[in-house]
Amino acid sequence: MHVTSLRHLDGGVLEREWTLGDVPGILWTPAPASPPAPLPLILLGHPGGLRAMYPRLAERARHCAAAGYAAATLELPGSGDRPRSADLEQARTELRRAVQAGEPVPADTVERLVLPLVETSVPEWRAALDVLLELPELGGPVGWSGGLISVGIRLAVVEPRLGAAVLFAGSFAPRASFEDAREVAIPVQVLLQWDDEGNDRQQALDLFDALGTRRKTLHANMGGHTGVPAFEADEVNRFFDRHLR
Amino acid sequence: MHVTSLRHLDGGVLEREWTLGDVPGILWTPAPASPPAPLPLILLGHPGGLRAMYPRLAERARHCAAAGYAAATLELPGSGDRPRSADLEQARTELRRAVQAGEPVPADTVERLVLPLVETSVPEWRAALDVLLELPELGGPVGWSGGLISVGIRLAVVEPRLGAAVLFAGSFAPRASFEDAREVAIPVQVLLQWDDEGNDRQQALDLFDALGTRRKTLHANMGGHTGVPAFEADEVNRFFDRHLR
Repeated sequence: MHVTSLRHLDGGVLEREWTLGDVPGILWTPAPASPPAPLPLILLGHPGGLRAMYPRLAERARHCAAAGYAAATLELPGSGDRPRSADLEQARTELRRAVQAGEPVPADTVERLVLPLVETSVPEWRAALDVLLELPELGGPVGWSGGLISVGIRLAVVEPRLGAAVLFAGSFAPRASFEDAREVAIPVQVLLQWDDEGNDRQQALDLFDALGTRRKTLHANMGGHTGVPAFEADEVNRFFDRHLR
Repeated sequence: MHVTSLRHLDGGVLEREWTLGDVPGILWTPAPASPPAPLPLILLGHPGGLRAMYPRLAERARHCAAAGYAAATLELPGSGDRPRSADLEQARTELRRAVQAGEPVPADTVERLVLPLVETSVPEWRAALDVLLELPELGGPVGWSGGLISVGIRLAVVEPRLGAAVLFAGSFAPRASFEDAREVAIPVQVLLQWDDEGNDRQQALDLFDALGTRRKTLHANMGGHTGVPAFEADEVNRFFDRHLR
C-alpha cells in the first residue's frame, strides 16, 4: 500500500489516497476516539470512475466517519485511471444504447459487462482488506455499502470478514448474481430507487427475493438513480450500528 | 367523549379508554413535558378487535410516547364489542377460506369486506379527531400508523389534519384503494412483510407504485404478518419526526 496523498477534510476526517499494485483507492478515517479504539470499516462500492464519483463518495465517507466508521473505496477494473478493456467498453456501450432506447437490456450484454467486473474486483477488494486491516487504527468488523450490487453480493458470499452489507440495487445483474444471492447469509439492507431510469425494478425486487438471508430489509424511495434521499445515509449508519457494533 | 377507564402504564404513560357515541377507543399520552407543549398525535390503525390487539397496540403506543407522541386508536365497525355485520362476517369468512386454501382472493370478496370498513370507519376516525384535538394536551399535527392500508389511504386523502402516514401493507385492498392512492399527497412510509402469508405481495407493491406522493418510502422485511422487526418501531418515530415536527 503506497500512500500518494494525505489531507484533512472538515470535521477532522483524514483522507488518504493510495495504490495497491496498480489499483488506486481512498481511505477515510474519523478523528481518533479517546481512548483510541480500532475502527470498524465500511467498504464503499460504486460503479467505477473514482474522480467523477469523488464528491458523492467523500460525502458518504464523511457520513460514515460521523458515526465512527472508517470508509475505504477502490477503483474498479477498466475505470478511471486504470487500463481500459475493449470488451467492457463494448458491453457498456450496448447497455447504455439499450437503456436510452427504452429497450430490454440483453442478458448477454449484462453478463459481458458485470461478470468480469465481479471476477476481477472482488479479489481486489479482498486484497485491499488484507492490507487495510493491518493498519493499527482499523480493527474491523467490515461492512459493504453501495454498488455494483453484483460485486457486493459476491463479496458477501466469499469474504468472511464482511459482517453486513448495504446493497444499492442500481445496476443490472447477471444470472450468476441470483445464484450468489441464495448463498448470502449475513444481514443485508437493499436500497432501491423505485423510479431509477437506468435500472430494472422487477429484477431488483427478484434479487431481493432471492437473497438467502432472513435478515434482509428493502428500502425503496423515489428520486431517480442519483436521488437517494439524504435520510438514507443515517439509515445506513443505523443498519451497521445494529449489525457491526 | 366518555372516559370509561384511566390508568398509568410504566414510564408515566396515561391510558384512557373512552367511547364516542358507540365507538370505543383508547388514548395514550406520555408524561407531560416541562414546559408543557401540545402533543402531536399518532392514530394507530389495526385490523379490528381492540381486546385481542391490545398488547401490540399498547406496545406501539408506548413507543410513540417515548418519542413524545400521543397515540389513539378506535374499534373498527363490526369488531370487538361493536355490533356484528352479517355481510362483513360472510366476506371475512370467504377471505380466510381462500387464503387458507392458497387460492386467489376474489376481488368481490375484498370489496364486500374492505369498502364498508373504509366507508364507515374513516368518518369515525375524523369525528374522533375533532374530539381528541379539543383536549388541551393534544395539539397536532396528526399522523396515521398501521392498517388497514385502505383505511389509512382514504384518511390520507380526505383528512387535511393528517400530515404523514405509515401504511402497513398487510391487508387486501379493493380497486377503490388504488384510485384513492393516486390522490395521496402527504409523505408516506409503507411497511410490507415480504413473506406475509395472508397478503398479496404484488398487490402491495402495485399499491406503493400507485401512491401519488413523491415523498414515499417502502420498507420490506421478513418475518411474516406479525413479525415486523423491532427496529421498525424506531423507523416509524423517525419518519414522523421528519414530517410532523
